Amino acid sequence: MDLVSFRETAERYSVIFLDAYGVLKSSTGLIDGALETVSSLIAAGKEVFVVTNDSSRSPESMAERYAQQAGGQLLPPERYISSGLLAAEYLEKQIPYGKVAYLGKPESAHYIEIAGKIPVPVADCTAKDNIVAIALLDDEGFDWFRDVNSTLNLIRRTNVPVVVANADITYPMRGNDIAIAVGSIGRLLSDITEKTFVRFGKPDSMIFAYALARAREQIPKVTKRDVLFVGDTLRTDIVGASTYGFDSTLVLSGNTLPERADLVIRSSGIIPTYISESIAT
Amino acid sequence: MDLVSFRETAERYSVIFLDAYGVLKSSTGLIDGALETVSSLIAAGKEVFVVTNDSSRSPESMAERYAQQAGGQLLPPERYISSGLLAAEYLEKQIPYGKVAYLGKPESAHYIEIAGKIPVPVADCTAKDNIVAIALLDDEGFDWFRDVNSTLNLIRRTNVPVVVANADITYPMRGNDIAIAVGSIGRLLSDITEKTFVRFGKPDSMIFAYALARAREQIPKVTKRDVLFVGDTLRTDIVGASTYGFDSTLVLSGNTLPERADLVIRSSGIIPTYISESIAT
Amino acid sequence: MDLVSFRETAERYSVIFLDAYGVLKSSTGLIDGALETVSSLIAAGKEVFVVTNDSSRSPESMAERYAQQAGGQLLPPERYISSGLLAAEYLEKQIPYGKVAYLGKPESAHYIEIAGKIPVPVADCTAKDNIVAIALLDDEGFDWFRDVNSTLNLIRRTNVPVVVANADITYPMRGNDIAIAVGSIGRLLSDITEKTFVRFGKPDSMIFAYALARAREQIPKVTKRDVLFVGDTLRTDIVGASTYGFDSTLVLSGNTLPERADLVIRSSGIIPTYISESIAT
Amino acid sequence: MDLVSFRETAERYSVIFLDAYGVLKSSTGLIDGALETVSSLIAAGKEVFVVTNDSSRSPESMAERYAQQAGGQLLPPERYISSGLLAAEYLEKQIPYGKVAYLGKPESAHYIEIAGKIPVPVADCTAKDNIVAIALLDDEGFDWFRDVNSTLNLIRRTNVPVVVANADITYPMRGNDIAIAVGSIGRLLSDITEKTFVRFGKPDSMIFAYALARAREQIPKVTKRDVLFVGDTLRTDIVGASTYGFDSTLVLSGNTLPERADLVIRSSGIIPTYISESIAT
Repeated sequence: MDLVSFRETAERYSVIFLDAYGVLKSSTGLIDGALETVSSLIAAGKEVFVVTNDSSRSPESMAERYAQQAGGQLLPPERYISSGLLAAEYLEKQIPYGKVAYLGKPESAHYIEIAGKIPVPVADCTAKDNIVAIALLDDEGFDWFRDVNSTLNLIRRTNVPVVVANADITYPMRGNDIAIAVGSIGRLLSDITEKTFVRFGKPDSMIFAYALARAREQIPKVTKRDVLFVGDTLRTDIVGASTYGFDSTLVLSGNTLPERADLVIRSSGIIPTYISESIAT
Repeated sequence: MDLVSFRETAERYSVIFLDAYGVLKSSTGLIDGALETVSSLIAAGKEVFVVTNDSSRSPESMAERYAQQAGGQLLPPERYISSGLLAAEYLEKQIPYGKVAYLGKPESAHYIEIAGKIPVPVADCTAKDNIVAIALLDDEGFDWFRDVNSTLNLIRRTNVPVVVANADITYPMRGNDIAIAVGSIGRLLSDITEKTFVRFGKPDSMIFAYALARAREQIPKVTKRDVLFVGDTLRTDIVGASTYGFDSTLVLSGNTLPERADLVIRSSGIIPTYISESIAT
Repeated sequence: MDLVSFRETAERYSVIFLDAYGVLKSSTGLIDGALETVSSLIAAGKEVFVVTNDSSRSPESMAERYAQQAGGQLLPPERYISSGLLAAEYLEKQIPYGKVAYLGKPESAHYIEIAGKIPVPVADCTAKDNIVAIALLDDEGFDWFRDVNSTLNLIRRTNVPVVVANADITYPMRGNDIAIAVGSIGRLLSDITEKTFVRFGKPDSMIFAYALARAREQIPKVTKRDVLFVGDTLRTDIVGASTYGFDSTLVLSGNTLPERADLVIRSSGIIPTYISESIAT
Repeated sequence: MDLVSFRETAERYSVIFLDAYGVLKSSTGLIDGALETVSSLIAAGKEVFVVTNDSSRSPESMAERYAQQAGGQLLPPERYISSGLLAAEYLEKQIPYGKVAYLGKPESAHYIEIAGKIPVPVADCTAKDNIVAIALLDDEGFDWFRDVNSTLNLIRRTNVPVVVANADITYPMRGNDIAIAVGSIGRLLSDITEKTFVRFGKPDSMIFAYALARAREQIPKVTKRDVLFVGDTLRTDIVGASTYGFDSTLVLSGNTLPERADLVIRSSGIIPTYISESIAT
């Protein structure tokens, strides 16, 4: 396993897609040196986007959070591409007008609102509500015991699509701890009910196609070969980007620990184009 | 469950994507009336494409086969979009020059050849071959006992990407029989080795994006809303098309039996936009 | 699907094993007629045992609860065989003295105490505790969000056996509602950590062997052929009992709804020896 | 990870259960020193049994094979306990008289014959045969492509129990190669049909209970504490034996490679009581 400099690698590409958790930030704030790297990529004329499975808040709210941590705007809201945007597009186009029961913080309901539907927390759903869809948006903002059980029975009683707006299994926390992401709650409920849910986010290629289309609004003739995707997780970021046709850099500043990288690459069979310690290198 | 006329439904869309097995053809030939429907769709100015997880032969060979059965060209080769084309693109762009070990008939090696790589049947691979990838293309053309076991050990011994060019689990045969598709062989080997493979085909959205891009070459301003996807399988065709943003018709001429359709829709939670007996209706 | 009288069926067997939830009781109390049937079985000289995956309380506490609902002792404590007893035996014999971190109500810690180990709720575990095992006992008595996440990280940080004392996926609630059982939490954590847990309870045959051994204390020459197992769940009770060699009655008073019984038997491939509406029939 | 001498460990137990593949033999014959260890265990008065998931031949045939390789009887036939015997007991007691369709070599049909049923190779089954069960016995003796597909359709068309007489996923071959065991074929077919099969063999505890009962015929008062189980596979031998209450020795002469043992113990969470290089040590 050879580590290469991220900044040198990035010089060869005109579009850089960065995962958020584990690449730009950790649970305690921005990753050391991330701000400087992003600034220098922009200064060098690269088109930089954040491409994340996080559907817990709007792009505007994401931009604001990074701005607080960075002491100034890192990237404007339209540069944050969340799997929540794909879920919103689905809810807008494929689902009739009505109430969407959701799991998540009130902020996550943003993706239901921009789809023109009415968000109702699962805890507030009654048998009389004629819901048109169920959306799993975030792992926080509700009582797991009560509301995951309620969601289970809601799924069993109704025959409406269940949308999982974040395909992640876990996300990194302080130290080497991790937390269960809403994608795992989706898998649990899908296993129990034996129903197929509508899932958005890496490794499915839709978010990569969406991001590429947004990059084309900046550079019309850009192709997959001009893109470098940077992520910290082999089973979502790297295999997804590679399948879609992007070169990829695995960074060791998040889910993939430096001392285990060599082993998990070999045991998973997923091979990134490059490996770097972090985007600061 | 209300059945609607397929032809009337199709009038509202300018692009029609048809799955192959169970929609256009069965194991015994073209589905009754399929030829007439395709002709009338073309006559009405619709852009018609076949979108299939079949990677066992080239688009040219597919076009020829349909022509034989239809007594004249059904659609030209460039109208056949196979998951094999995505696998070929991946092999071309993401894999260095060299030998690709494959499972499948010699015809299926087409997708390795157009990627500029050297196809070698798994049975002919020796320990000395420095293979650059392993490709699962088709369920026929090899000795299952010997070659599936050889593939297993090849995957364990090497650390190269394993490409599954057809995500299908089964395909329909004569009567109500089914056959195990190469996607199931991929799942078996992935479960045993605990490695992640690079999979192409429905329900992943990449093939839908690819097909839409091809339709745009004909009608530049076409959007997802102008497309109707027609398939016989809920868990690949319908959930995939719906997630990507296409309206969908489930036909009951293939994997989904008419007498079970209502039940499987309810138990799977996958809801097509329309249901039709077949495309002949 | 032919329904038979449970009481007539039971006449042919000398040992009757009854599942608890869905057979003897529902979430609202004893199932109608269950008390009378148990009394008449005992009066007829049958050896009656309750065989349950419930590890949330001790046999003594179970006996007391039924006594309250029945207005008098239904069965003495030694007639309640819980998967918790198997977990306790494992903790006693296979695990060294020390602290066992557990998920569940304080009552469920009974099974750790009788194993001679020190129960510590997961929420009270600190990094300094040298725990010797982790036990998932019950789905209640803790904060899911906080404690399931803590358990996940505890499993990742330590290398001690994880015991799941209840293999159930769900259990029936009021109406047709269900609740997520601790077995599902075990499956979620096992999937995320990719570790193998030590699981107790139906359908694994150990609890059936344990119950048979206990019946032999009453009737020394009893064989598997003398036993009728009565359960409401195909995938745990019926397939497990049948694999072990017991005849089985599926009752339709719990997890398997009368209107769906025929379908789920056919689609699951699990065939009970008999089907009865409830044990009251 | 501390390696201990197997012979010294064995001194503390009166009953020794040995897995076959990877403990006693490899694909090329008896493991070096295995014969001497077995002889010395017997000479020391230990009760020695082979406990295996192999259902490809009868205990008599197993005994004969070992005798050929050892140049004299290793153990008499009644000391070979195969998961096939459990499957035979099930077929005898739970299945009515009739034809049982099977996958495997003709020798494996032994387990159907001793159950008093009529074995019919899947390839010879016609729609007119009223089969009473389907048995997956062995990975050899049939044409995989034709017969695994036939078995799939047989399972779908009929509603009879499907017995998997060997729960193993793979077995070791020459060098570090492995081969797909019939348990994997069972998992593939069960995944496709979504049916629950009746599975026999480690890690389910039934075979351990069966073996203990056989040991009791020799030493009536023997308990679980007197037994040492020796296996080469963590996920079947070790977790199963430990769950049932046997102490266990993991040997590194089969599926678990010496250089990976430490890692797989930590990553699997399965902890053997002892680890030895082989039973020869």
